[in-house]
Amino acid sequence: MARDEPLLARPASPNSSTNDIEEEDALLTGQPTNRSPVNRSRRWTEIGLFVWALLATIAVIILAVVYQHETSTAHARPRTGGWGPDGKPSGKRNMIFMVSDGMGPTSLSMTRSWRQYASGLPIDDVLILDKHHIGNSRTRSSSSLVTDSAAGATAFSCGFKSYNGAISVLPDHTPCGTVLEAAKKAGYMTGLVVTTRITDATPACFAAHANRREYEDLIAEQMVGEYPLGRVVDLLIGGGRCHFLPNTTEESCRVDSKDIVALAKDKYGFTYVDNRKDFDDLDPNGVKLPLLALIARTDVPYEIDRVHVADVYPSQAEMAHFALKALSAATQDSDKGFFLMVEGSRIDHAGHANDPGAQVREVMAHDKAFGEVLDFLDADDTEGVLVSTSDHETGGLAAARQLHEAYPIYRWFPEVLDNATHSTEYLNHEWAEYLSSASSPVSRNDQASKLRELIISGLGITDTTDEEIDAIIDAKPTWPPFYILSDMISRRSQIGWSTHGHSAVDVNIYASHPSHAPGLVGNHENIEVGKFIAEYLDVDLEPVTKELRSKKVKTQGAGEGEEWGEWMGPEGLPVNGDGSLVTVDAYHGDFKHRKREVEECGCGARH
Amino acid sequence: MARDEPLLARPASPNSSTNDIEEEDALLTGQPTNRSPVNRSRRWTEIGLFVWALLATIAVIILAVVYQHETSTAHARPRTGGWGPDGKPSGKRNMIFMVSDGMGPTSLSMTRSWRQYASGLPIDDVLILDKHHIGNSRTRSSSSLVTDSAAGATAFSCGFKSYNGAISVLPDHTPCGTVLEAAKKAGYMTGLVVTTRITDATPACFAAHANRREYEDLIAEQMVGEYPLGRVVDLLIGGGRCHFLPNTTEESCRVDSKDIVALAKDKYGFTYVDNRKDFDDLDPNGVKLPLLALIARTDVPYEIDRVHVADVYPSQAEMAHFALKALSAATQDSDKGFFLMVEGSRIDHAGHANDPGAQVREVMAHDKAFGEVLDFLDADDTEGVLVSTSDHETGGLAAARQLHEAYPIYRWFPEVLDNATHSTEYLNHEWAEYLSSASSPVSRNDQASKLRELIISGLGITDTTDEEIDAIIDAKPTWPPFYILSDMISRRSQIGWSTHGHSAVDVNIYASHPSHAPGLVGNHENIEVGKFIAEYLDVDLEPVTKELRSKKVKTQGAGEGEEWGEWMGPEGLPVNGDGSLVTVDAYHGDFKHRKREVEECGCGARH
Repeated sequence: MARDEPLLARPASPNSSTNDIEEEDALLTGQPTNRSPVNRSRRWTEIGLFVWALLATIAVIILAVVYQHETSTAHARPRTGGWGPDGKPSGKRNMIFMVSDGMGPTSLSMTRSWRQYASGLPIDDVLILDKHHIGNSRTRSSSSLVTDSAAGATAFSCGFKSYNGAISVLPDHTPCGTVLEAAKKAGYMTGLVVTTRITDATPACFAAHANRREYEDLIAEQMVGEYPLGRVVDLLIGGGRCHFLPNTTEESCRVDSKDIVALAKDKYGFTYVDNRKDFDDLDPNGVKLPLLALIARTDVPYEIDRVHVADVYPSQAEMAHFALKALSAATQDSDKGFFLMVEGSRIDHAGHANDPGAQVREVMAHDKAFGEVLDFLDADDTEGVLVSTSDHETGGLAAARQLHEAYPIYRWFPEVLDNATHSTEYLNHEWAEYLSSASSPVSRNDQASKLRELIISGLGITDTTDEEIDAIIDAKPTWPPFYILSDMISRRSQIGWSTHGHSAVDVNIYASHPSHAPGLVGNHENIEVGKFIAEYLDVDLEPVTKELRSKKVKTQGAGEGEEWGEWMGPEGLPVNGDGSLVTVDAYHGDFKHRKREVEECGCGARH
Repeated sequence: MARDEPLLARPASPNSSTNDIEEEDALLTGQPTNRSPVNRSRRWTEIGLFVWALLATIAVIILAVVYQHETSTAHARPRTGGWGPDGKPSGKRNMIFMVSDGMGPTSLSMTRSWRQYASGLPIDDVLILDKHHIGNSRTRSSSSLVTDSAAGATAFSCGFKSYNGAISVLPDHTPCGTVLEAAKKAGYMTGLVVTTRITDATPACFAAHANRREYEDLIAEQMVGEYPLGRVVDLLIGGGRCHFLPNTTEESCRVDSKDIVALAKDKYGFTYVDNRKDFDDLDPNGVKLPLLALIARTDVPYEIDRVHVADVYPSQAEMAHFALKALSAATQDSDKGFFLMVEGSRIDHAGHANDPGAQVREVMAHDKAFGEVLDFLDADDTEGVLVSTSDHETGGLAAARQLHEAYPIYRWFPEVLDNATHSTEYLNHEWAEYLSSASSPVSRNDQASKLRELIISGLGITDTTDEEIDAIIDAKPTWPPFYILSDMISRRSQIGWSTHGHSAVDVNIYASHPSHAPGLVGNHENIEVGKFIAEYLDVDLEPVTKELRSKKVKTQGAGEGEEWGEWMGPEGLPVNGDGSLVTVDAYHGDFKHRKREVEECGCGARH
């Protein structure tokens, strides 16, 4: 091959090799091969073109590498989360939305420091959640600066503010389409996993509509499919079995004799399990959906208590793991992924109880479930996004407490929380059991001994005072024993609470990566969380809302002659002429005494 | 010109035009010009090379445009903030660090909702700070899970954890170089603006070193230059005049007769002003630095009180505005910018006082100052970054409070805060004045009348009870009248507090833009804030630390025969053999009564 072969080689014609041409040139021109001025000129042209092409190609490669590097470091994500390059969600994708019910900012610092203390970890060994903090959420509802879980979850499910107590119903008592309903209609699979009753406000808001959160019997019916849209949930895992069983059975807490489990199985084809063993026997890759797993009569026990009966109740992480596997398997051949809501429901309950020992373990259980979802997303072939936030704070928790008039030392004591092995709710139950099981009246001395034993074994408190014992023995229904037990552990750890209800502080937002939820980075109103879910799933809630509003049928729950005008149950709160809500509790200077607003419905605790 | 001129033109030789070559070719070969096989082959080579070069060039242009677009949209910032394309700070730049002392998460939601109520604003009309939320900070100190402002500010100034009370001194009682000192040495101009005493813990930590925060007399000397490094601050604006005046003058709170104002003026060349009129007369563009402006004897009044005497005291925003202008003018011809710390000092004091009416106005004053800095950065030619965070939360504030045993309604009442026109501190002062100014003993009835008058005019509370009046009249020093007044407004607004001290909740981090403080997005330890400042200023604190440690001289503050072994004052807290701090208050089960740790130094409030 000639040294001077054109630099950009092209296939030589069978009739004319480059050698032939060179020879022909030499013969015809009488010039030494490739030595002619024209050849020299051409040669320089070729070299110039080659250098240009080479430089441009090198520039392309460099720019491509730099661009690739910038793109990957700017977002620092191995996965796109299902977001296309145009900033719009694209392709098959999964959305996992987690709710840390009642977890405020202080819950995090309290739990983190307790964990570091309990496990001997350095200060930079933080919760998984801490590493995924992206912003915070403002939580007020339409009826109050302090929301409840119903209005909070309606903001997440519908993207609208509503009144405290509303289950995906707007202030004018019309239903609003939810992200789960819209996702189902768009072809996604759907699931709800909770550690409280599956009929409680947060899960209810995704797959039911009721004028009051207390209508849990009604909500149970709707969640299996008995409402205008039919069945929309493919997987339900949690507690609250009592609302699904007829009041002819011992476990029931329904007011009627309807068998919602039978309804779910027979009419809507649900696979049903009601205990851990059967739950564990389910193969997540082969389970026939829809699935209704009601693994507790009411609430799943607090994590601090559950670890003692882990053979009876699965953890939040275990339930989340199963749900992820099952929904992933069920959508394997679909071009749509799934929407799953997982709630750490009882962080809130520990706040209501003002029980810091229970709360730190609840936060850790949620943190573990959060990690479980992250692991799933990392390993799964399908892109996906995890967002976690709270509906509100509960308890007015403070990691500092002044116990005396003397100016407080700046301390709180995690070691006190570490000594606890049970929740105050559990001890309260043990105490009530002890009293009710006695065949004859128990002496005050015996009661005191039993109490001290319970407190030492359950809370690790060895310096209980006589005053504390007396307060528990003489406790009134409005200030039950567990309030006093919670105060004992809180005082000793110097943890403060301002209420047994909720508070208005902004709550944290977490995500698998900031780039996975760009619309939620920074400070946001809670309704933006709902709008984000709809945006990510690329679903329109308006048609669902229209469909729901077109069906003003009598509810199945309404008995003959009862005043159930709508399928969402009676309206609970008065509305002004303009459709806005009449404020239920304006300030009248009556700070000295407020009566608890009487709840019409006796079923279910209000949290 | 021939149609077939080589595509990549090169200057023709004067002796050989392309036409000449074509003609020569034709004559020599007997072939029509450019019709030979060799020419055809060459021509295809050239076309191929040209297409390659052209495509590669087009690719370069497309990639460059895309890259440019991606870079600009990814950061969405009109200003770089002084960060170079390599992710390192570059060029002349300014750093403004703001501290919202004692402002926790609830301070924000409380203030935002009060503002929306007071101004009739919709829920999406939020604070300026809210729009700049980028993360949050973990605040524990080396000696406790609950920090104080000294350890908190040492984390910001030195980037190290230390014990509560430490003024840029490590747990082993050695000084640590600060970002302000290092900035000064690197050629930046420096400034400190506060609304409390300029000798208080937060500002002190940037330009002084003391074993205890209570050594404010010593700190005053150091801040004007009387310490190993000499003068490092170019601009000091705030209160605390009393620590600069000799105890021979009425305004002084010094224990000695040293005149620090004279020292500042005569030895260190400070321009000095001590009142608003003289302060206003200063021309920020022409003021001779260094400047010492001590515009209050101790604290600048709370914003809620200051607005009534705005002709006497400038606001935080006004002081910040002046400082920005003055430092900008002073660095106009420098290749280095400035470092300015601005503190909303008294959000913390309102927390200590448990006074929500005062706190919401303090937060608004800080928010306004934050906006002032943003405006400066937007308009200024020099790039700059604003970061704002808190050292800790104060008060265990909760926007919800249970007042009775009955289960609480989920509400709090911003209208109650809106009725207040004065702080409880101010009313406490008025009350004390009233009592001390009476020439003869005042009857209890007259005292009650006066109190009711003060409470109506200052807090807007018209339903004061007899019990509340009695409590104030009979108040003890450990639970002074303003505690009771604060409780009155807090109860009526249903705002809760757990302590008059600090708490351990994580505090928010704000920045001019997330891209301006990429290292502080998300959840961080407070020492990372200090490390970020050093990184942005591109300064090394280690040499400063070494220089400080090499100068173990007797302090100027030590009198003849006094035991001041070091220039940082006596060590206040015991240290273990390994240099770690002996815990001052371990849990001993003594939750029933704690005595306040006695402070050796009587000067200055401990906040």
